[in-house]
Amino acid sequence: METVSENRCFGGVQGVYSHASTATGCGMTFGLFLPEEARDGPVPVLWYLSGLTCTHENAMVKAGAQGWAAEQGIALVFPDTSPRGDDVADDEAYDLGKGAGFYVNATEKPWAPHFRMWDYVAEELPQLIASEFAIDAERQAITGHSMGGHGALTLAMNLPGQYRSVSAFAPISHPTASDWGRKQLRAYLGADESNWARHDSTLLMRESGFDGPVLVDTGTDDQFIDFLKPEALAGAVAERRQEASLRLQRGYDHSYFFVSSFMEDHIAFHAEALYA
Amino acid sequence: METVSENRCFGGVQGVYSHASTATGCGMTFGLFLPEEARDGPVPVLWYLSGLTCTHENAMVKAGAQGWAAEQGIALVFPDTSPRGDDVADDEAYDLGKGAGFYVNATEKPWAPHFRMWDYVAEELPQLIASEFAIDAERQAITGHSMGGHGALTLAMNLPGQYRSVSAFAPISHPTASDWGRKQLRAYLGADESNWARHDSTLLMRESGFDGPVLVDTGTDDQFIDFLKPEALAGAVAERRQEASLRLQRGYDHSYFFVSSFMEDHIAFHAEALYA
Repeated sequence: METVSENRCFGGVQGVYSHASTATGCGMTFGLFLPEEARDGPVPVLWYLSGLTCTHENAMVKAGAQGWAAEQGIALVFPDTSPRGDDVADDEAYDLGKGAGFYVNATEKPWAPHFRMWDYVAEELPQLIASEFAIDAERQAITGHSMGGHGALTLAMNLPGQYRSVSAFAPISHPTASDWGRKQLRAYLGADESNWARHDSTLLMRESGFDGPVLVDTGTDDQFIDFLKPEALAGAVAERRQEASLRLQRGYDHSYFFVSSFMEDHIAFHAEALYA
Repeated sequence: METVSENRCFGGVQGVYSHASTATGCGMTFGLFLPEEARDGPVPVLWYLSGLTCTHENAMVKAGAQGWAAEQGIALVFPDTSPRGDDVADDEAYDLGKGAGFYVNATEKPWAPHFRMWDYVAEELPQLIASEFAIDAERQAITGHSMGGHGALTLAMNLPGQYRSVSAFAPISHPTASDWGRKQLRAYLGADESNWARHDSTLLMRESGFDGPVLVDTGTDDQFIDFLKPEALAGAVAERRQEASLRLQRGYDHSYFFVSSFMEDHIAFHAEALYA
């Protein structure tokens, strides 16, 4: 693992690190914020998964998360959204290939060799940060924005016990029934839709739900709301009687101005679960 | 004036607007955050001047200022750092020409026709925002980062009564004695150094000081600290017995991770003056 940069930030350190990934078979870069408390021992960690077109950097510089994480003594991880490099397959569209990994393990050509973001985020990167930094692997929580909200919700529901709480900002909530989802799941996982179900948070909510609290915010003026389908997840949450807060925030859109506006709430929500 | 974008943000609106500027003779773009309170009437305003290479956008997305401004009911203005456009002179260096206006009125070729950022920030843009938005022109304060900190300090000291308080993050504090300053002041203002003095906050502090509170933060690990010369300003502040807090923040560098870490303090500092 190599240190790309380290900047002092809210009493802690905002680092950027790169490493050769076994899961994705390429070099990967991630951001990690460690609060001051990490100097004295392991701290809880909140994962932040980003949306389409993003790298590790967008949320790290625009979401305004570090101040609240510092206040709560929580680390933040900002993974990239896809494999990277000249050897990695890509597509001209912004919503497929690089910057659009969708947090799945691809089984189809040409994606299968590198597009294994599920394994990367669920297994490899957690092990790496727990071994290299003062991270308490027993206290993890997860959030994300848009495609990253989809990733956070599907990881949390598929991996019981791994995350104590899950939240999302404007998540893609029902990708098997959306233009943000069907195209990508078909490309990465093939035409058999039965293989898509574990990557759809509405279907997962109907099937099993999440053993912990859930918080989801979406803006009423989100320009992509027809792709996100918050109503599908809301219906499934209500049917299951899942412990959850689903909020529609009046006048907010899909941007980081929306994300940053509610970051304090999300980090306080996760802190309550992580310190319970 | 045209609206480039408006995003709901912390209960208010983060807007971006463009207009034809008389001062700079070109199209200019600026960011303006209006808190929720602006719907009911004029609110105080804090100017944020950015540093070398920046546009109106950098601080708007990276400084984490809107949340604190919303809490205090204060508007934020984010001007660009230079004139823009194909007709505007430029230089290959990052620290001269576009993105490097240094908040002066250039008198020398080829800069004189457009590089009038002093007039733009001191006169034209304040009049525009006070006429177009719910801004209380009687309650203004100013801050900035690096070259923008230089701009904030020199504007505040040259225009008594215009700003109630001034602060800066890692400001260029003594440009007439620095490689971040001498080159640019010579290019924009000519070889006669007597014309440079009113654009040097250390010299201004010795000469007149500021009729109000001053707050300056600089990181002890700032990679450009030899160009900034906080020690020169500190000496002048102490000699004048200027009301001021000059803080050296241990371990912080020149980045926006530093700026955002202390934004809450700066906005609280200005709020105290603006609501006094």
